[in-house]
Amino acid sequence: MKSVLAAVDVGGTSLKMAFVTHDGEIAAKWEIPTNQSDKGAHIISEAAASIKEKQREYNVDIGAVGVGAPGFIDVERGFIYEAVNVGWKSYPLREEMESLLGLPVVVDNDANLAAGGEKWKGAGGGADNLLAVTLGTGVGGGIIAGGSIIHGQSGMAGEIGHITAVREGGARCNCGKNGCLETVASATGIARIGREKAAANPSSSIGGALKAKGSLSAKEIIDAAKNGDHAAEEAVNEAADHLGFALANLCNSLNPETIVIGGGVSKAGDYLVEKITASFKTYAIPKIAAETTIRLAELGNDAGVIGAAWLAAKAYRGEGTAEL
Amino acid sequence: MKSVLAAVDVGGTSLKMAFVTHDGEIAAKWEIPTNQSDKGAHIISEAAASIKEKQREYNVDIGAVGVGAPGFIDVERGFIYEAVNVGWKSYPLREEMESLLGLPVVVDNDANLAAGGEKWKGAGGGADNLLAVTLGTGVGGGIIAGGSIIHGQSGMAGEIGHITAVREGGARCNCGKNGCLETVASATGIARIGREKAAANPSSSIGGALKAKGSLSAKEIIDAAKNGDHAAEEAVNEAADHLGFALANLCNSLNPETIVIGGGVSKAGDYLVEKITASFKTYAIPKIAAETTIRLAELGNDAGVIGAAWLAAKAYRGEGTAEL
Repeated sequence: MKSVLAAVDVGGTSLKMAFVTHDGEIAAKWEIPTNQSDKGAHIISEAAASIKEKQREYNVDIGAVGVGAPGFIDVERGFIYEAVNVGWKSYPLREEMESLLGLPVVVDNDANLAAGGEKWKGAGGGADNLLAVTLGTGVGGGIIAGGSIIHGQSGMAGEIGHITAVREGGARCNCGKNGCLETVASATGIARIGREKAAANPSSSIGGALKAKGSLSAKEIIDAAKNGDHAAEEAVNEAADHLGFALANLCNSLNPETIVIGGGVSKAGDYLVEKITASFKTYAIPKIAAETTIRLAELGNDAGVIGAAWLAAKAYRGEGTAEL
Repeated sequence: MKSVLAAVDVGGTSLKMAFVTHDGEIAAKWEIPTNQSDKGAHIISEAAASIKEKQREYNVDIGAVGVGAPGFIDVERGFIYEAVNVGWKSYPLREEMESLLGLPVVVDNDANLAAGGEKWKGAGGGADNLLAVTLGTGVGGGIIAGGSIIHGQSGMAGEIGHITAVREGGARCNCGKNGCLETVASATGIARIGREKAAANPSSSIGGALKAKGSLSAKEIIDAAKNGDHAAEEAVNEAADHLGFALANLCNSLNPETIVIGGGVSKAGDYLVEKITASFKTYAIPKIAAETTIRLAELGNDAGVIGAAWLAAKAYRGEGTAEL
């Protein structure tokens, strides 16, 4: 019977699940809807039942289970303090899943596991020191140092999106302070800056689009910038410069080998990476600027489950994990 | 025979040496001059001879040896790429010392070991996630995450002094870029800003002192600020705000329990810590601002040898290291 790792990536609308081989290949993957009723009380039992069903279907032996979850987590205990998206509050995830499956379970933050996935099988190329940034509606991140995820004192490490990027007069952030990287470099932030540039430059292509539609998305702004619209390019340059500044300062202190950039905004591709890299080099120690690679993420939506499997393999040292 | 750890803190003018008990108390300490002749080729043999002599004198058994050195180090091999202050270039420190003493030897950067010392027996109070900053002629640092020193890909992690603090128009730094934290928050940086403020405010007390003496030290500026001189206070506030900004952004990403501030400038005491803390709270995520403690270093010049002993104990797991 083939031995695999089971991986679960808990999201607000669905649970991404997979069996992953000990060398990081996805053997099977599927999704089930996230049952938000009763404050998420049925999510883990449904996940466990789904794992058992697929285990019979694929006739595999499961070595360990890795679970990625959003929100604040006590990683050592696998205890969820709060995960607003799925309804959990003070929820003993690990304990519950271990008792349902009779298997060792490890739990970590989903953004941290995406970093682990990219490290193991994606753009990180095995780097033991890696920074992962996710540019989506918000800005998330994960930090791997010396081969392990950095959690910090209360599990908040990796919250790259709340680095203060705009020191004075920055926009208000959900976190309660102003000028966070998330307010200028997320899709939401780029859209906001773009709308400001569009309103100030009515003759630009984004100025015309804003007037015609009353709104502008980050994608529309980035596309216009790629097509040479100066107002749009100013907006993208501003976002990229804030990213380059924040990432350079992290690298000046953490010296990772690789920065991996993922999330919806990263679909802007090399165009965005080149701009971020240019700013990064301005603010990084010359040796760091020369040695740090900035790459687009490669695993897309699979990063979470592969990262969860990486953590499971790493924690329980199953067969074939020598290359971790 | 009592078992101890031997510790060596290599500096440009002297080697600080100590025998440290397995629970972190200094059993004996002494210094020998740094022999810079022949590109530092005699330093380690003299250190080893001194350790043997003191071992006989104190009649102790040595479990392991920890060595802190300045410069770029391959920590795994204990290999010094370059240490300008003492003359080493491509120097196999660990190998040499192990063959001279017949004992396990561990080597790390001196700033990292100062962080380890403060963690173990100083202001860090055992924190597994800790940031140490040394404000001296330059700005140095060390980062401990999950109980271990963070080294990064090429040993440059912890170089907090080269975080870009002044984003545009900053002063030139020795590292080759502009606006580094070191250019505004070291003794040199505070003196530079203070002289600018003094020249612009000739009627201030530091303005008068600059005119009379032609120069101003960081200590004179901080003392004048404490005595209520507004120009001097502006200079100190500027330095403290840059420190608060840089440290908050590190903590937004690393979530340490404690920041320990040491070095000559930290003799300004609580006056400086309060200013740094106020800025820190402006730029930190509210939960981080509430939970992170900023403290003055407690071990002074002993931090290096205690940190070297901490590393030796941690690496070789001698008796009594459970509390590491």
